[in-house]
Amino acid sequence: MFKTLIPARHPYYPTDIALDGFSPATLGMTTILSAFGLGAVVVVAAIWLLSGTYRQLTTAERVLMCWFAFTGITHFIVEGAVVLDDKFYTDTTGNILKEIWKEYAKADSRYATRDSFTISMEFVTAFMEGPGCFAILYGIAYRRSWRFTLQIMVSLGQLYGDVLYFATCYLEGFVHSRPEFLYFWVYFVIVNSIWIVIPSWIIWVSARHISSCVAAADRMTRPKAS
Amino acid sequence: MFKTLIPARHPYYPTDIALDGFSPATLGMTTILSAFGLGAVVVVAAIWLLSGTYRQLTTAERVLMCWFAFTGITHFIVEGAVVLDDKFYTDTTGNILKEIWKEYAKADSRYATRDSFTISMEFVTAFMEGPGCFAILYGIAYRRSWRFTLQIMVSLGQLYGDVLYFATCYLEGFVHSRPEFLYFWVYFVIVNSIWIVIPSWIIWVSARHISSCVAAADRMTRPKAS
Repeated sequence: MFKTLIPARHPYYPTDIALDGFSPATLGMTTILSAFGLGAVVVVAAIWLLSGTYRQLTTAERVLMCWFAFTGITHFIVEGAVVLDDKFYTDTTGNILKEIWKEYAKADSRYATRDSFTISMEFVTAFMEGPGCFAILYGIAYRRSWRFTLQIMVSLGQLYGDVLYFATCYLEGFVHSRPEFLYFWVYFVIVNSIWIVIPSWIIWVSARHISSCVAAADRMTRPKAS
Repeated sequence: MFKTLIPARHPYYPTDIALDGFSPATLGMTTILSAFGLGAVVVVAAIWLLSGTYRQLTTAERVLMCWFAFTGITHFIVEGAVVLDDKFYTDTTGNILKEIWKEYAKADSRYATRDSFTISMEFVTAFMEGPGCFAILYGIAYRRSWRFTLQIMVSLGQLYGDVLYFATCYLEGFVHSRPEFLYFWVYFVIVNSIWIVIPSWIIWVSARHISSCVAAADRMTRPKAS
């Protein structure tokens, strides 16, 4: 009987934030991460196999498609869910999309407190960059001439969003993250760093390719310099 | 004598923010805007004249150079100043770079309160996009093959930063802006909208040009589809 009268203490930092109606995670960490990991493996495997049989794509193009499928679905579904659901921490049904965010909020409570920057950035990530990733899948599969430009735009959006994500935490003194190695270093630093490293690499490779195309076009359309 | 004992009330919203050591603007609004406007006219005129005599550039290229010179100097010097100076509102010397921000903070007090998103975004704008604009000037003048890509990257950075700038204010209920027409509509909405409209147009034009170059390269390097 007391259980329903005394609100559960939340596990988020800083410990004094008020989260009315908080309900503890009903799934364990292993279950939550396994569900996310399994979903990612299924998506990547499906795109890898499909892209290998359907058209004559290079290995590099197939790897890019796997990445954009994984990150696009993560943006649109997982990050989209937290943008649209400002009370995910009150859920008692075990919905995996809410459980993921109950777990991740241990590394960044701004998702629970609806920090204006975090939600704005995730809105753009989920509903602009997410569909952008899906468009890139189409662009690579059908070798559309805008594919490199869109790769750069989506990747730069991810990179800029992530830089601001880290920078705002730095300026606020990293107060939103639990201090344990798993939450601060693994979830917060390492997982988010993926969206610094891979987009930077894609921007570099795509920009080099575009430059070679532009240089070729410049050579064709202009008289040679003396 | 009382003047030094009783702190001046600041003009910023919300009115209850504490700004220790606030010192009222020593230059009038007309002087501040005239100085900024004059600087902008000098920069644009100089680039327009130089670009017309120095190399054979198209009118579109010269207009782009004027824009990137204006916005680059604004980013690097004006926005760079506020990033590095967290106490601009205490200045008593009439330094124009501090007076500009005392005036603009009436439209957005987050510059004075050192809001973590605003300062992070301005840091990237000043010290990544600012030099990026200068690189674009060089890229256009010497028709470097990376110029369109960099135009898109800098413009997308401006656009994304500005979208987040408006979105965070929306989510916080526009509490950081004085309600007068001049501050809310002119400074906050209209002036910032310039960096929505012009970057969007530059992205569109640059992306179209890149696509035509990529399409030409695709035609040269691949066998025709059956």
